[in-house]
Amino acid sequence: MKKSRDKHLPLGEAGRGLSIIKIGGNVIENKQELTKFLSLFVKLDGNKILVHGGGKLATQLATRLGIESKMVEGRRITDAETLKIITMVYAGLTNKNIVAQLQTNNCNAIGLSGADGDTIQAHKRPVKEIDYGFAGDVDGVNSQTISKLLEADFIPVFCAMTHDGNGQLLNTNADTIAAEVAIHMSSLYETTLYYCFEKKGVLKDINDENSVIRQIDNRKYTILLNDGVIADGMIPKIDNCFYAVERGVEKVCIGHHSMLDSKNELFTTITL
Amino acid sequence: MKKSRDKHLPLGEAGRGLSIIKIGGNVIENKQELTKFLSLFVKLDGNKILVHGGGKLATQLATRLGIESKMVEGRRITDAETLKIITMVYAGLTNKNIVAQLQTNNCNAIGLSGADGDTIQAHKRPVKEIDYGFAGDVDGVNSQTISKLLEADFIPVFCAMTHDGNGQLLNTNADTIAAEVAIHMSSLYETTLYYCFEKKGVLKDINDENSVIRQIDNRKYTILLNDGVIADGMIPKIDNCFYAVERGVEKVCIGHHSMLDSKNELFTTITL
Repeated sequence: MKKSRDKHLPLGEAGRGLSIIKIGGNVIENKQELTKFLSLFVKLDGNKILVHGGGKLATQLATRLGIESKMVEGRRITDAETLKIITMVYAGLTNKNIVAQLQTNNCNAIGLSGADGDTIQAHKRPVKEIDYGFAGDVDGVNSQTISKLLEADFIPVFCAMTHDGNGQLLNTNADTIAAEVAIHMSSLYETTLYYCFEKKGVLKDINDENSVIRQIDNRKYTILLNDGVIADGMIPKIDNCFYAVERGVEKVCIGHHSMLDSKNELFTTITL
Repeated sequence: MKKSRDKHLPLGEAGRGLSIIKIGGNVIENKQELTKFLSLFVKLDGNKILVHGGGKLATQLATRLGIESKMVEGRRITDAETLKIITMVYAGLTNKNIVAQLQTNNCNAIGLSGADGDTIQAHKRPVKEIDYGFAGDVDGVNSQTISKLLEADFIPVFCAMTHDGNGQLLNTNADTIAAEVAIHMSSLYETTLYYCFEKKGVLKDINDENSVIRQIDNRKYTILLNDGVIADGMIPKIDNCFYAVERGVEKVCIGHHSMLDSKNELFTTITL
């Protein structure tokens, strides 16, 4: 009963509610869309955290510097020069411009990499078939430290970087950072994780933007998989959402960033 | 009497003591020197804040990108492209590597630009004879916010950037940031400001590194100026120190970063 009532609460109205919103390149690289998104983000009630990627800008800078960008299955091979570029673009250019823009709306943003405040610890991905270079797999999230920042009325804005505690910065996928932060924060807050992407949600018919599936739980996911409705690149995305809800996140919402003021109703919501 | 006793206290042993240390390019651009300095910084007792510049690395990146670096009287002309470079190098590459390295020593560093937490507000320098572009003159420092971070056991690490509250990041001289942060924090803490540079201190004889003048107050400064002992580029440096002590900073120490464990004794100390 409690669960179904909570679903209709505006974001963050729960005493210890926390919204974690992840945006990707499609928002960051379009100035107009970014401004639109940030104005919606500012209006979200309650505790909130922003997580951003920033892929294409890094690729552009690498090209200008004559450094080849190597990708394997959508993941960047991060050699030493590429790590420098990522640190400059993600933690510098993208992160600080988002923070400055949020501050215009009295949103007390504070930009963070996982090294700042030791918020996200990781280790360099072991070399197997592929050497991903300075790519980091998350070991832990310092939920107490992030909570201290939230309680002091800061709005953390995470870029997609972690550190290994031995002085090494690491490139970590923004989806993963969002999931891990959400999982660890869910021991302290009732946490909702939003993955914003190009589509309005998980679609029943990939050619019909209005065929959003509103609710997916474990049982329904099995059916959708069996029927072939969810396939290809959508499978790892949804698996990642279940990874989060199975580890304590209240719900994961997938959809377009322009729907953030809809109080969840328009997103695809994934629960256990 | 109190003053002379305090001088011999180790850094930060005073209940609300705060040390603000500014380092420049000579430390940042030399990996070995930076490591040496950071290990001394970590050992400083009490509240502390690090402020860093990072000029040459920005110039190097600009050169690689085919962007000309224009300087007037040691100040960078910051056009839109240069601002991007500075944001990438200062707030990204330099700041995050310093933070990650401090974290290896259990020093809970958190990297900040003036936009983060709205810590340092500035305005774009008005165009007079020279158009400095996106250079920021400091309007205010949010001492309460910085204090909140210190009380929560974070060690703020500031890069040389501010913001105007309207979404514009600005390039601000690191010496100025250190002075303004020190001045504003001195209403809450007994603040000592350290300017680390290439020399051991203010020298009586510019060719003798061991001729450091230990103590300069207003009266002595007048004498040193009249005698021509302090001249040229040293005058604005010392004027900047007096600017800080006249506005509430307890003392300003000038000297080499390797002397940070000397408990002030080796630096040139500037007081009213």
